[in-house]
Amino acid sequence: MATSTVPHFQEELQQLKARLLEMGGFAEDRVRSAVNALVDRDPAAVDAVLAGDGPINELHIEIDSRCFKMLALHQPMAVDLRAIMSAVKINTDLERVGDLAVNIAEAAVRYLQHPPVKALIDIPRMAEIAQGMLRDALDAYVRRDTTLAQAVLDRDDVLDGLKTQVFRDLLTVMLSAPQTIEPSLDLILVSRHLERIGDHATNVAEDVIFMVSARDVRHHAGDHT
Amino acid sequence: MATSTVPHFQEELQQLKARLLEMGGFAEDRVRSAVNALVDRDPAAVDAVLAGDGPINELHIEIDSRCFKMLALHQPMAVDLRAIMSAVKINTDLERVGDLAVNIAEAAVRYLQHPPVKALIDIPRMAEIAQGMLRDALDAYVRRDTTLAQAVLDRDDVLDGLKTQVFRDLLTVMLSAPQTIEPSLDLILVSRHLERIGDHATNVAEDVIFMVSARDVRHHAGDHT
Repeated sequence: MATSTVPHFQEELQQLKARLLEMGGFAEDRVRSAVNALVDRDPAAVDAVLAGDGPINELHIEIDSRCFKMLALHQPMAVDLRAIMSAVKINTDLERVGDLAVNIAEAAVRYLQHPPVKALIDIPRMAEIAQGMLRDALDAYVRRDTTLAQAVLDRDDVLDGLKTQVFRDLLTVMLSAPQTIEPSLDLILVSRHLERIGDHATNVAEDVIFMVSARDVRHHAGDHT
Repeated sequence: MATSTVPHFQEELQQLKARLLEMGGFAEDRVRSAVNALVDRDPAAVDAVLAGDGPINELHIEIDSRCFKMLALHQPMAVDLRAIMSAVKINTDLERVGDLAVNIAEAAVRYLQHPPVKALIDIPRMAEIAQGMLRDALDAYVRRDTTLAQAVLDRDDVLDGLKTQVFRDLLTVMLSAPQTIEPSLDLILVSRHLERIGDHATNVAEDVIFMVSARDVRHHAGDHT
């Protein structure tokens, strides 16, 4: 099967990729802002995250609509068709990452109502890893780079390990002082939200491998979702 | 725009719907089994859930591949194109529901290592509501029934309310007895997994409304994801 040779399609595909990168940038910024607001104990910054999911939601609808129009007008084949189907899925993943940034901010609102229970070291580390995975997964999509996509998949275990570490540390804290139970729960939730952001990056990376190689790498070698 | 008149396409679409219903049935069964295993404190039943995600994962790949082939071969338009795009998304949602059943079973494994912390009333109720939402959302897809889809969206608040109730009850339990902290955390996680299953049903319902009416109801009137 030949790929579509309509020049207009390739131009639209470039625009689509640019919009996905833009959306990825928004999503990443919002995760960073939410975690920074939590670490800095900055209620105004938390509120800004809670109020700011408009642009991502608008892009989500716009990208979906672009994909739909490109399928309807150009009827792409092979790798071009897979690129559009992947874009539809990646778009969903990025929107969920935006939702998870809101979830982190919601946990931060509650957390800030209590004195800090511990220094936050692993949570910012988790955030950094998850953001890096997301960025690399999107780069892999744009550059059709399966090596980079595979590297994203390999990093998911680090995030899972940190999540377990956070859980163990906080369990110890809670057992020693009941007044820390409620804020500790919110930190546990934040670590789980960050782990899920890593899962979404993993989904994107799997879509890239499918798009490029038509090889389905999901449901093999260890479930990570 | 006319809908595709290739008879073969409509036949394949019926098969696709049948496979999605089958997958929905699997997903629903697994959620029910996981919650029953938790409530009945039955380790063998928990293990069965942990070991049993093969069929859903196989269907996930098969349905994706069907959608891809239908797009490539038939190049459907309008509502038929939207039906395929919705199927791709619904397929992803159902696979995540299967993953969440595994997450519930994982929490159950840990929970069963402790004495029960309370009678489980709200969690089975949440499971029943989430399963009903999922079933109705899929029925709405198959029958292209936007009224039923809207009814699914309306039920999401009930699930959120129960999740909050579960959290408050368990917080009281934990504060009164530190040895209940660890198992209570797992029940809180289970309630969140069930809430997310409701979110996936909501996603499916939104896709149905988009498919039928080409109207995007996401990101309006209260975020539920």
